[in-house]
This record gives sequence, structure tokens and C-alpha cells, in this order.
Amino acid sequence: MDNSRKLLAELIGTFWLTFGGCGSAVLAAAFPEVGIGLLGVSLAFGLTVLTMAYAIGHVSGCHLNPAVTVGLAVGGRFPASQILPYVVAQVIGAILGAFVLYLIANGVPDFDAVASGFAANGYGTHSPGSYSLGASLVAEVVLTMMFLFIIMGATHGRAPVGFAPIAIGLGLTLIHLISIPVTNTSVNPARSTGPALFVGGWALGQLWLFWVAPLIGGALGGALYRFVSPDPAEPVVGGVRSKG
Amino acid sequence: MDNSRKLLAELIGTFWLTFGGCGSAVLAAAFPEVGIGLLGVSLAFGLTVLTMAYAIGHVSGCHLNPAVTVGLAVGGRFPASQILPYVVAQVIGAILGAFVLYLIANGVPDFDAVASGFAANGYGTHSPGSYSLGASLVAEVVLTMMFLFIIMGATHGRAPVGFAPIAIGLGLTLIHLISIPVTNTSVNPARSTGPALFVGGWALGQLWLFWVAPLIGGALGGALYRFVSPDPAEPVVGGVRSKG
Amino acid sequence: MDNSRKLLAELIGTFWLTFGGCGSAVLAAAFPEVGIGLLGVSLAFGLTVLTMAYAIGHVSGCHLNPAVTVGLAVGGRFPASQILPYVVAQVIGAILGAFVLYLIANGVPDFDAVASGFAANGYGTHSPGSYSLGASLVAEVVLTMMFLFIIMGATHGRAPVGFAPIAIGLGLTLIHLISIPVTNTSVNPARSTGPALFVGGWALGQLWLFWVAPLIGGALGGALYRFVSPDPAEPVVGGVRSKG
Amino acid sequence: MDNSRKLLAELIGTFWLTFGGCGSAVLAAAFPEVGIGLLGVSLAFGLTVLTMAYAIGHVSGCHLNPAVTVGLAVGGRFPASQILPYVVAQVIGAILGAFVLYLIANGVPDFDAVASGFAANGYGTHSPGSYSLGASLVAEVVLTMMFLFIIMGATHGRAPVGFAPIAIGLGLTLIHLISIPVTNTSVNPARSTGPALFVGGWALGQLWLFWVAPLIGGALGGALYRFVSPDPAEPVVGGVRSKG
Repeated sequence: MDNSRKLLAELIGTFWLTFGGCGSAVLAAAFPEVGIGLLGVSLAFGLTVLTMAYAIGHVSGCHLNPAVTVGLAVGGRFPASQILPYVVAQVIGAILGAFVLYLIANGVPDFDAVASGFAANGYGTHSPGSYSLGASLVAEVVLTMMFLFIIMGATHGRAPVGFAPIAIGLGLTLIHLISIPVTNTSVNPARSTGPALFVGGWALGQLWLFWVAPLIGGALGGALYRFVSPDPAEPVVGGVRSKG
Repeated sequence: MDNSRKLLAELIGTFWLTFGGCGSAVLAAAFPEVGIGLLGVSLAFGLTVLTMAYAIGHVSGCHLNPAVTVGLAVGGRFPASQILPYVVAQVIGAILGAFVLYLIANGVPDFDAVASGFAANGYGTHSPGSYSLGASLVAEVVLTMMFLFIIMGATHGRAPVGFAPIAIGLGLTLIHLISIPVTNTSVNPARSTGPALFVGGWALGQLWLFWVAPLIGGALGGALYRFVSPDPAEPVVGGVRSKG
Repeated sequence: MDNSRKLLAELIGTFWLTFGGCGSAVLAAAFPEVGIGLLGVSLAFGLTVLTMAYAIGHVSGCHLNPAVTVGLAVGGRFPASQILPYVVAQVIGAILGAFVLYLIANGVPDFDAVASGFAANGYGTHSPGSYSLGASLVAEVVLTMMFLFIIMGATHGRAPVGFAPIAIGLGLTLIHLISIPVTNTSVNPARSTGPALFVGGWALGQLWLFWVAPLIGGALGGALYRFVSPDPAEPVVGGVRSKG
Repeated sequence: MDNSRKLLAELIGTFWLTFGGCGSAVLAAAFPEVGIGLLGVSLAFGLTVLTMAYAIGHVSGCHLNPAVTVGLAVGGRFPASQILPYVVAQVIGAILGAFVLYLIANGVPDFDAVASGFAANGYGTHSPGSYSLGASLVAEVVLTMMFLFIIMGATHGRAPVGFAPIAIGLGLTLIHLISIPVTNTSVNPARSTGPALFVGGWALGQLWLFWVAPLIGGALGGALYRFVSPDPAEPVVGGVRSKG
């Protein structure tokens, strides 16, 4: 598979994650009376990954997330030389996703990206539930660590074939069910970067945490799983094994 | 498999999509205190496709949607000569679905299809969240494009066998989680046509958008996926590969 | 597999369907502030079938429902001679499920099965949304017909192996998402019989509809699917094919 | 597979079950306006098991629960000599999960573990819905029995390969959909022990029930399934069969 198609797949997939996940939050979460709430947003984020993992898992491995790319490299499943191009493609995709969402959200006269928060991640006074920097840091590190633990395990050579997208997608749903009130849930620096560019100000000022914590957590998760189950029965390239 | 059985399967499947998806919206979404809300409606639409894809995927490919039929043809997975009969069967099924729903909804004395909206799609003043024509157009094109991208990918020869109905059905759930507030979510001209006939007036006047935007989006999605992953390992007929 | 174990499996499975589905409705649907609502009840009913289909599908076929047993017989997938013992086991299981639920629900001082409705099915003044007898009849016939259509299709010899419990379980979830406001959703005479015995009065008086309509619908669904896809590639016994 | 890695896997998995399940309850269930409610908490508990079963099923069998370990031993699927180390690892993991949750929850100034309940299990005046000790006992015994029945069945040699994590995880979701109002749902002595240590007082005083009832129920479920389907086609080690 030539490399530019892998990067295009990562770009499109991260576009979908950011557009779909943040889109459900911005457009539908608090719709009067019948809004989908944090449960619906959690499901939406997870389903962006589940759907893309089936669609492009055999193309690029469907990381859609710099913390996943770094974690898989630490875990011995991804070549370090490919980290930078994957991350660049993911960030471009996330910015495009936020941009298209901005276009649609602007279709209502009174829309204000800054006032709405536009699904940006935050801590302290910008945490949805006013959680401190320390609590936010712990949450993002631990949740990204466990996300990589799930990804490493579900794509292990001894795990049942074909089910990894379900485990990984619904794992991201679970992570959101726990932590939207804490940081609006990142565990993904690309997803955090997209909306932050449209909110500016505080969102850009706090963006560092949503790069540092997920990358640390992802690396820890990749290393932890490798320690728990070091013996893959067959080599795996990227996040989802192909059949061939 | 003889052709008339394929068309009957498409008719029944699109009946189910329209009756089940719109039925959950009309009958249960805003039920007092315990209504299922937009999250429940999103799940219902997705499950109509998931259930039918397992039931009739091996018969007709389970498109249930003119935008899917056109997108798969553009993507090189479906013969152009079959587009018209498939679309006719889908539209008939959708109208029957809306009709049976109308019969049931009328079982309450104060039911009024026009006043309730009857799950018809709309933009501008008829958008649930008052989104403009432009925003509605962007949303329907982008979401249908990504729907076809998921369908093309999940049924690709290198994707895990048997999981496509889960990816595609839950992909439709995700699309609804994002966009019910914008247009009531179409991405499917047949589904839009059924209720519009019972609402009349504005719903018929706005119906053009829910043919034009999904068909454009579907064609774009079929072409985009073909560009990202041009080499199917095995031929696929219709949306879901059979085992044989 | 000896026959008494099949009947025991049907009894336990229908116990679970009635206890779990009706239990979620009676105990958790309207819990103050954080209740699961009709969406949670719909999910619960579906998951009783999904879980049991994986647990006992290879034992008895996991019908758990007289309408399923009759529909599969009409569809040519189940021997007519076994209908009666299956139905008796299912009804006993459903009554036991309602009984254990009654024990638990009675653990709150002010519980009153009659006043609460105890998840019994009803039409007219006993329909949750006051739907007429006619509307209730149409809903139960059409939904049971489509339920059997899904079951026949997902267990067809050309459908992907192993996924039928997902399609069938989530199909029952979908059916509830549409129709709880209409009849509290039966599509299953055994499930209707259990709670009706504890409510008495109107619930017993209306019970006939929830035998007649699902049995007619189930038979229609079995026949309809057989017409659409008459050529199973391999014989199927019961609802879920075993691997062997 | 060497034994210490199995125990580490059980510890991490039970950490995730307790942190994730209780975390969703403590942090997100009652978030103003858009909280995930009991439905979101039910989904979260189930997804902790689904995700871990795919990630570590091939390492330790993914029990994450002393009642599961005991039930599988009674059912003839797990060596009795390994019960004690498994249970110790599970309890340590659960306590760590509650501890990390405590760190995060404390990131809001007014957090009070005792006043909040911290997702501890209780009966009588500490039951969310004020259910009596008797009702709570019946609920925990019956639900754990059925949980083991599902686990035994979905991992049986004749059940479809690879789907057990879905059946078991969503089975735990179903159990929570039914019974959070009764006892806050335990069916897992380790999960109950973690939060009880941080709440102290009544939670420790009532903890006995959430050891006794699940262990009895688990043993009954293991025995019941063995009676219904005594003939596994192939040996199974732990909860999830590996492919090899």
C-alpha cells in the first residue's frame, strides 16, 4: 500500500472523528427537550472510530490520534519513522473537521463559537465541571493509557479477528462516559487542536495539556500492554490486522 | 438470485427503515418524561439498517437508499443498469412505511401529521434547529459522502467479513446523532419522500434538497473511497459480501 | 441434544427476557432524575435476547417467544411437533420471571403492581399513549412480522455466521424504540402473559390481543421471508445455527 | 502463559471495571442537564468488561470479579487452586481503581465521598430506591446467577467464536439497567469493596451482602449452566476461548 494513501486515510478518518464527535456535542447535545446529552456525544465519538476502523483499518491501521500512533510505536507495533507524517495528517484532518463543523454551526444566526466552547477541551475554570489542572492531568493520562492498553490488546495476534474496531470504538465511548465533565475528554491531541483554533484565547492557552497528557498516557499504555502480554502470535501492522 | 426478489427485498428493507426510523421519531421521541429523544431516534434509524443488512444483505446488498445505490455504482461496486429499478423499489417501500406509520399514529384522536411534522426533513424555518439552506446542504452532502465512504470501506475485500452491517448501521446512527437538529437528517432521498407525501406543502417544496444533496454526497463518497483504496482483493456484489 | 434440556433452556431464557425486560421498566425506567426511560427499557429487552442467544442458541435455538416458534415453523425452520412443548416452557419461564420481579419490586413499602401497571401490555385506555385497538393491532402484527423476517434472514445459511444474536437482539430493541408508547410492546405472548397474571383485571382482559396479533405477525413474517429468500444454503435448526 | 502476568491482567482489568464503571456514576451520571443517567452508567460498566475481554481475554480469561472466578470453578471451567490468587488480584485492582477515581473526583472543591455515596453498594436505607435487605439479596443472587449463566454459555465450545465479550459485556449492562435502583448493582464483590473503603461507615457495614450474594449467585449460575448444557465440544480455559 503506498504511503500517501495511508496518510490520506488518516486525514479523512481524523476529519470524521473531529467533525462527528465534536459535531454531535455542538449541534445536538443540548438540543431542547430531546437533546442527546453526554451519553449521545460519548456514543458519537466512539462510533467515529468504530466506523473508520472497519473502513480504513486495512489501509492505514486507523490511528486517527497522535497518542495512538506514539503508543503503538512504544508498544512495538508501529515504525517510529512514520510517526511524524501520521501526526501531521491527523492534525490537518482534525482542523478540516472543525472547519466544516464551523460552517454548519454558523448556519444559525446566533451561533458564537467562543461563547459555545465549540467542544474545545479545558481544565480549571474551563473544565465543564470545574475540575482542577491536577485532576484533569490524572484523568487524561490514565484514560489514554487504558485506551492504548485496549488497542494493543484487541489487535493482539491472539485476540479474536475482526472485533478490534468494536472494542476500540466502544472503548472511546466508555472513556467519554467517564470524563466529559472533567476535561470535555481529549485523549487525542489532534481532536483537541481542531476546535481550539476556532475558539482561540483560553482554548489555545490550555491546549498544551491535551498534547502532553495523552502522549504520556499513550506511551505508558503501549509499554504496559507489552509487559503484560509480550508475545504476539503474529505480526501486526497498524491498529487493525488485515486478514491477508 | 432472480432480480424480482432483489427488488422485493429492497422494498421491504426501505419500508423498515422508513417505518422504524420515522416511527421512533413520531411515536416515541417526545413521549412525556421517559421519551427516547434524538438519541433513541438515532439508534432506531441505525438499527433498521443493521437488522436488514444481516437479513437481506445476501439477497440484494441491502442498499435501502438511492444515494447508496448511486454511490456504489460510482465506486464501481454496482451495475449502473440496476440503479433505476433499485431506486423505484426503495421509494415504493418508503412510501409504504410512511403509510403504515400514518395508520398507527392516527390511532390517537388528536394526531395531526402536518402539525407534528411527521419526521419529514426540512431546512431554514423547517429545520428543527432553524439551520439555513446553506448549512443544511453542506451537512447532507458531507454526511452522505462519509456514509458511502464507510459503506465502501466496510464491504471492501480486505475488511473483516461479516461486520459491515454493524459498521454501516451504527454509522447511520452516528450521522443522526450529529445532524437531526440541522435537517432532521436525510442522507436518503427515499426516506425523505415517504413522510413528505403525508405532510405535503412545505415538505414537498423542500424535498428537492434531500434528493440533490444525498445523491451528490453519495457519488462523492463512492469516488473518494475508490481513490483511497482502489484495489479490492475480491469482487463485491451489492453492499454486503456473502460468504459463498 | 435431549429434548428436556432444550425446554429447560427455553424456560430459563424466557424467564430472563421477562424478568430483565419488564424489570428494567418497573424498577428503573422512571427513577427520579436519572431514570433509564423508554430507551433504556428498549435496550434491556434487546439485550435479554442477545445474551441468551449466545448462551443457549446452540441448545434450543433461543426462541423465548411463541410467535418466534410459530413463525419459524411456518418458515420451514422448526418442526411443528415441537411447537406446543416450546410454548409451554416459554410461558412457564415468563410467569417465573414476573414472579421474581414481583418479589423484588415488593421490597419497597408503597409498591402496588396494579397501580404501577407492572409492565403489562395494553391498548385503548391502557395503552401508554392511549392508542386505539386498531392501531395497536396493526403495530403488533407488523412489528412481529418484521421481527420474524429479521430472525429468518439473520439465521439464513448465506448470512454471516455468529452475528444473528446481534441482529435479532438489537432488532427487538428497535421494535421497542418504536412501539412502547403504543402497546408497551409485546410481539411476544409469553412476555405479555407473565405480568398480566400479577396485574389481573384489565390486563387479563386485553391479553388476547397479545396472543393473536404476534402469532399472526410471526406466521406472516416466516412466510414472507421464505418467499423473498427461499433457498437456504444449509439446513438450520432453531433460531441460531451452531458451528458444527 | 506465566501466572504472574495473568494476575497482573486481572488486577488491571478490575482496576478498569471499578474506575470506569464507578467513575461514570460519580463524575457524569447526574451532571446538570446533559448527565448520562443510569443508562450511561449501565453502558459504562458493560463496556469496561467488553473492552477488557478483547484486550486480556487471551491472557487471564478476563474474570475481573470473584463471583465469576468462583462460578467458573463450580461450572468446571477454572481450577479451584487459582481462585484465591485471582480474587486477591481483583480486589487490589478494584481498590486502586477507587483510589484513582477519588484523586480525580477530589479535583472539585466541594467533593465529599461520603455524602456522594461514591458509587458504593447498599440496601435498605442505603439502597438508591430504598429496597429492603430481602429484595436486595434476591436481586443480587438472581442477577449474578444469570450473569454466570451467560458467561458459561457464551464461552461454551459450541457458541460462535469471538462474540463472548459482546454477550458478557452487554449482559453486565443489562444487569445494571435492571438493578441500579435496588442496590446500585454489585454482582461483583471486588467492585463493591473498592468504593466502600473510601465511604467507610455504612458502606463497610453492608459490604458483607455484596460478597455473600454474588458468590452464591455465581456458584448457582455455574452449576445451572453445566446442567443445561453439560457437553462442551472443546475445552475452555478461563472466560474467553483463544483461537489457538
